Amino acid sequence: MPQTLRNDRFLRALRRESVDCTPVWLMRQAGRYLPEYRATRARAGSFLAMAKNPEIACEVTLQPLERFDLDAAILFSDILTIPDAMGLGLHFVDGEGPKFERPLRDAAAIAKLGVPDMETELGYVMDAVRVIRRELDGRVPLIGFSGSPWTLACYMVEGGGSKDFARIKAMAYNDPKALHALLSVNTDAVIAYLAAQRAAGAQALQVFDTWGGVLSPAMYREFSLPYLTRIARELERGEGAGRTPLIVFGKGNAAWLGDLAESGAEGVGVDWLIELGDAARRTGGKVALQGNLDPATLYGSPEAIRREVRRALDSYRDGNGGSREGHVFNLGHGMSPDMDPEHVRVLVDEVHAYSRR
Amino acid sequence: MPQTLRNDRFLRALRRESVDCTPVWLMRQAGRYLPEYRATRARAGSFLAMAKNPEIACEVTLQPLERFDLDAAILFSDILTIPDAMGLGLHFVDGEGPKFERPLRDAAAIAKLGVPDMETELGYVMDAVRVIRRELDGRVPLIGFSGSPWTLACYMVEGGGSKDFARIKAMAYNDPKALHALLSVNTDAVIAYLAAQRAAGAQALQVFDTWGGVLSPAMYREFSLPYLTRIARELERGEGAGRTPLIVFGKGNAAWLGDLAESGAEGVGVDWLIELGDAARRTGGKVALQGNLDPATLYGSPEAIRREVRRALDSYRDGNGGSREGHVFNLGHGMSPDMDPEHVRVLVDEVHAYSRR
Repeated sequence: MPQTLRNDRFLRALRRESVDCTPVWLMRQAGRYLPEYRATRARAGSFLAMAKNPEIACEVTLQPLERFDLDAAILFSDILTIPDAMGLGLHFVDGEGPKFERPLRDAAAIAKLGVPDMETELGYVMDAVRVIRRELDGRVPLIGFSGSPWTLACYMVEGGGSKDFARIKAMAYNDPKALHALLSVNTDAVIAYLAAQRAAGAQALQVFDTWGGVLSPAMYREFSLPYLTRIARELERGEGAGRTPLIVFGKGNAAWLGDLAESGAEGVGVDWLIELGDAARRTGGKVALQGNLDPATLYGSPEAIRREVRRALDSYRDGNGGSREGHVFNLGHGMSPDMDPEHVRVLVDEVHAYSRR
Repeated sequence: MPQTLRNDRFLRALRRESVDCTPVWLMRQAGRYLPEYRATRARAGSFLAMAKNPEIACEVTLQPLERFDLDAAILFSDILTIPDAMGLGLHFVDGEGPKFERPLRDAAAIAKLGVPDMETELGYVMDAVRVIRRELDGRVPLIGFSGSPWTLACYMVEGGGSKDFARIKAMAYNDPKALHALLSVNTDAVIAYLAAQRAAGAQALQVFDTWGGVLSPAMYREFSLPYLTRIARELERGEGAGRTPLIVFGKGNAAWLGDLAESGAEGVGVDWLIELGDAARRTGGKVALQGNLDPATLYGSPEAIRREVRRALDSYRDGNGGSREGHVFNLGHGMSPDMDPEHVRVLVDEVHAYSRR
């Protein structure tokens, strides 16, 4: 990729280098809260049709950058592309989220799974990465991503979202060997997938361990953490490593931030259930931290948004020995469709203005 | 209440006194996983019809005690009886949980709320407490309960359950005065309600701060903790105080266990997202702890259940200076309808057998 990156704040922050101001991007920044996104979606027909068409994926990836002074773009895709390519049949039911037509119910079904071929079965993702890199033209870095092995397994076994994760937890208690087999093939696939996105042009990578936080600490250390660590370690050795930082995001990960800081990832994404300063103290400068405003803050007035942005920025600095280095500003989880784009502008501008002082 | 209590393990544990073995009860132990419960419910017609009929509430409260060696009974009722008595119109939609016909949307609606009269508008609850105490006849203590001011407010403002609590958080950011007015009247009502249950015969009280864990630490300290503290302090001064311990349960409360230990409550209930030993270290013997098995453990095999029970018992002891005193065994959240009653027996018996050694 010969382009010069004109805004490298995000990558510098992930390397814990000095920056002129704190970089910011928002999980689900390309989404239904934007009227232009809704227009594209109406034309494309569905979320999956958008994600599977590289030109459209590029279009919606860039939409929020046209409006807001964001410091990174994130590939428009879904965390469940891997199990879809494994043949589970991903589809979306309005108001219910993702579903699989053929969820995994036993060890026999798991034994049949294989790592998909990245350039044929997931070629639409790599094509999207290439098109977006070309269209971004060095404006900001592009983040590629994947679901974590545990989070993918949750959807693959439950067949969709869940309130209590009864099926996968039953498997953890009654057939841990089968679950480890599933997590292992998922891990191989995630590593190949992230390496392929990197080879196609992704300049940073994020793993979404969305459902790690439904596990007890003991189960987390058995069923999620070792696989995240393997991803971080193996990506470090791959081609293009060193230039391509990895962020591990998890909801409800406060209890094991110390472990994540040792995982080999460059950045850890945290939710709003911990003070960012405490998170900085617990990770002791070993990683960059990404986060952590409650997304619901965007329902607040501009004044309230500015106050909460400052509070998070100051909390990080206080816990990080007085320095703002190593902080990527973000929400603690994704945006919602009923949020006001003007409030996003307030947030993004305040992050830059306040942290520049 | 002139009866002699024949099994006071639960109350002794809440006072951090020595016990022959660790007491155990389970949140939602009277529920749909029991065929006899489903039969009673089919006869009564609905959950609310059961809760509002003292004889039936008594019948289902006692059902799990007939099967299992439980150390406490908990009043069969709902956490939302108070807002129902305030006129919001509680009803249940199958598969969606509780709903209010008239949710609160602004300060004007909040200003009209008043504390219900306990013996007329919530008389069915006090009657149920009296009938259950009579039928228990001193076998085990009876726990009365309420939702926390914040958790009640969540349902009252959202109109039901929520994924992102957008409405109440918007109120927190945009009209904190209105939200504090709501929390204040809820607190007055919870204090009167728990005091009335105590006067009717409840021998311990639990406040369910089910949704405290959706708040950032800063918001928790503004919108939930001070009201829990007021409840604990004012109940301490009431008639029958000293003999009637209070447990504050919260999902996702690991971040503020230290604060809860200072709230004035005798016990703190914790979920499975923290090692019980860590919770004991963080609360430093100031309170009893209740918890904290992942309810999904009940989907495991009997061997897996026994292993996890022992792990939780040992974790508590290790964090509590080698002593089992001050531990009430429980799940970290309520049971689900598809759980196997035989697995509950395994759990209860293992708690007693292993902790008696």
